[in-house]
Amino acid sequence: MEKDIRTLGRRAKDASRLCAKLGTEEKNRGLLAVAEELCSRSAYLLEENEKDLKAAEEKGVKQSLIDRLRLTEQRIADMAEGLRQVAALEDPIGEVLSMKTRPNGLRIGKRRVPLGVAGIIYESRPNVTADAFGLCFKTGNAVILRGGSDAIHSNLAIVSVIKDGLKKAELPQDAILLVEDTSRKTVGEMMKLHEFIDVLIPRGGAGLIANVVENSTVPVIETGTGNCHIFVDASADINMAVDIIENAKTQRMGVCNACESLVIHAEAAKAALPRIVERLKSHQVEIRGDERARELVPGIVPASEEDWGTEYLDAVISVKIVDSIDEAIAHINRYNTGHSESIITKDYDHALKFQDEVDAAAVYVNASTRFTDGFEFGFGAEIGISTQKLHARGPMGLEALTSTKYIIFGSGQIRE
Amino acid sequence: MEKDIRTLGRRAKDASRLCAKLGTEEKNRGLLAVAEELCSRSAYLLEENEKDLKAAEEKGVKQSLIDRLRLTEQRIADMAEGLRQVAALEDPIGEVLSMKTRPNGLRIGKRRVPLGVAGIIYESRPNVTADAFGLCFKTGNAVILRGGSDAIHSNLAIVSVIKDGLKKAELPQDAILLVEDTSRKTVGEMMKLHEFIDVLIPRGGAGLIANVVENSTVPVIETGTGNCHIFVDASADINMAVDIIENAKTQRMGVCNACESLVIHAEAAKAALPRIVERLKSHQVEIRGDERARELVPGIVPASEEDWGTEYLDAVISVKIVDSIDEAIAHINRYNTGHSESIITKDYDHALKFQDEVDAAAVYVNASTRFTDGFEFGFGAEIGISTQKLHARGPMGLEALTSTKYIIFGSGQIRE
Repeated sequence: MEKDIRTLGRRAKDASRLCAKLGTEEKNRGLLAVAEELCSRSAYLLEENEKDLKAAEEKGVKQSLIDRLRLTEQRIADMAEGLRQVAALEDPIGEVLSMKTRPNGLRIGKRRVPLGVAGIIYESRPNVTADAFGLCFKTGNAVILRGGSDAIHSNLAIVSVIKDGLKKAELPQDAILLVEDTSRKTVGEMMKLHEFIDVLIPRGGAGLIANVVENSTVPVIETGTGNCHIFVDASADINMAVDIIENAKTQRMGVCNACESLVIHAEAAKAALPRIVERLKSHQVEIRGDERARELVPGIVPASEEDWGTEYLDAVISVKIVDSIDEAIAHINRYNTGHSESIITKDYDHALKFQDEVDAAAVYVNASTRFTDGFEFGFGAEIGISTQKLHARGPMGLEALTSTKYIIFGSGQIRE
Repeated sequence: MEKDIRTLGRRAKDASRLCAKLGTEEKNRGLLAVAEELCSRSAYLLEENEKDLKAAEEKGVKQSLIDRLRLTEQRIADMAEGLRQVAALEDPIGEVLSMKTRPNGLRIGKRRVPLGVAGIIYESRPNVTADAFGLCFKTGNAVILRGGSDAIHSNLAIVSVIKDGLKKAELPQDAILLVEDTSRKTVGEMMKLHEFIDVLIPRGGAGLIANVVENSTVPVIETGTGNCHIFVDASADINMAVDIIENAKTQRMGVCNACESLVIHAEAAKAALPRIVERLKSHQVEIRGDERARELVPGIVPASEEDWGTEYLDAVISVKIVDSIDEAIAHINRYNTGHSESIITKDYDHALKFQDEVDAAAVYVNASTRFTDGFEFGFGAEIGISTQKLHARGPMGLEALTSTKYIIFGSGQIRE
């Protein structure tokens, strides 16, 4: 198997050389051909998906996961539409970001190029298969996908349909490769393929991501975990605070940009906290607070030290009362995961201070953390949300899948 | 020790929060104060350096390494001058790279911010200590340095003098921290400090770099190894080719952007190879070639498969004869290390094809590979040359030590 996954790596590397040479029109033609193929083969995709659903039901997998695994005509149409949207985006490859002439006459330019081979390790949602392919193909990269065992029949079917689409468009079918063995071992092997894979993007739960960060020799872009805070400052508009907190916590509970923790200035707490608690309780959210919060409002359960660092992804939120913006920022910088943080304030200096000093991918003033998303930011697509500082930070669009190279035009220059 | 290095990590993280808040004037004031302190304390630095030199001589370290280890009044003045030059560079921190207003009124900007804590693992040259500090401090980062045991007295002295300079300027002394234990173990421990260190940059030989790439859980920027090629195309100006090859191979043999391998088109070889060999032999360079090269010119020794992949860093070069530019590009993409590659040609299409298809940080037409360098590229300084594709590629100036964050100005927006 070690040998097989290396073979896969080598095939991807070879394909990446071909993909890098494709022009924008060829790549768009490929994306549209694949979209067409997905739609026309939906009966086959549903049939294969049914095998995964049946196996999951037999294993007693919980209903919410089965829902994520399920393909429908609509979801297949959405995958195809996603590819068409990516085709419509501007191609970042080939752009010369800057070009200067040096005193010795050398013209030195910096050109955007593909990364080469991207590896994506993900869990049960089969739509990621088509989405990841689309973004990688548009940026001239080959992609090796390693999905979860629960979705293996769906993923095999989607990949074979994508390959058929590429074949019809006379484009390299190895632009997409799937690791067919979904045993744990293949994740480990894929993480060591730095000879062939240029970047590894894990998409899934905190356990998967930690495993990849700890063990990969391939450069990793860490995505996803979001212990996001909202700080209600002393001067906050309380109506706005209540609406934003409701939205950030309850609009979708299980996502990384949902709010998991409130920090409230003592001067605002007396007026704001009862209303916040009331609104959240109307959505059955459990509130865990420090002693001061619990003194102010009944029905708040005690928060432990562990709560401050927990991404619940569920109907739970923690509340801490502070005496200053400095205390709020220190708390947030200690416990956050570098995802999205928001301050609700009318104070100009506090707004700027919060944006300056909070260390996170996205720092908001007077808005919901739920906007941290490639589509909401106007990128048109998203391969994930980076919570690390190297290469890409925050929602990653097409540019995150590119590198640069220096191109130098000389006329015989040698170094003195 | 594990505990101690974690303490160091935490101190660096705390210091990085303070450094990130410093304005450009404060940072420049610090750099100038440190430059001043280095100059005025040169007697102390030379005294401590003498201990390292003596120990190295007793250990029988070879003269070239002792030369790299040696500090002189001039080298100390150069370190100080380097810091003054960094002070004069534009501060990249705080620049808003783009800002857009979304349809919902959210103003989303992307701002350049420090990375946080940089870790540098390096070998014997003590000037790296001051250079790395300067670049990290200018970009608002704290830095943890782990130098080699051969230079420990010099590094301790330089770091203490830098801290004294920072103290006089009333700036955070923990902006620079040195791992004082130079046992092998501390390299391993430092590589696991992803909780505190945001990027690790190894500077040294291939063994050190491979060790860090294979074992670090901190994101790494791979630097340095350069198996650089020059391709002499059929249409090359032979005089130009000979001059460029001489320069790229012999101007400085032990550096990463020196040429290690020639690829020559068969149509050019008959006229070009004898002259290239003659010129290189005048510099006592050993030439290792394939059979066709050896048939053309006497005095070429046989090249083995291993030679194609070897970065000699010495007076040796390999030569391969090819029948087409495609064969040349395939050979280069198979054996290069992604550093610097050059084509000598008069053919317009071949020049563009080579730049398009060769996969390396810097791809030259009609120029020496020796120009791949932060100063030669006009960056004013360099922290190393990245041979990976993520985050930074090629010579890294101040920008490579920065990240970005999204700053979002709202007025109560919630997600629908």
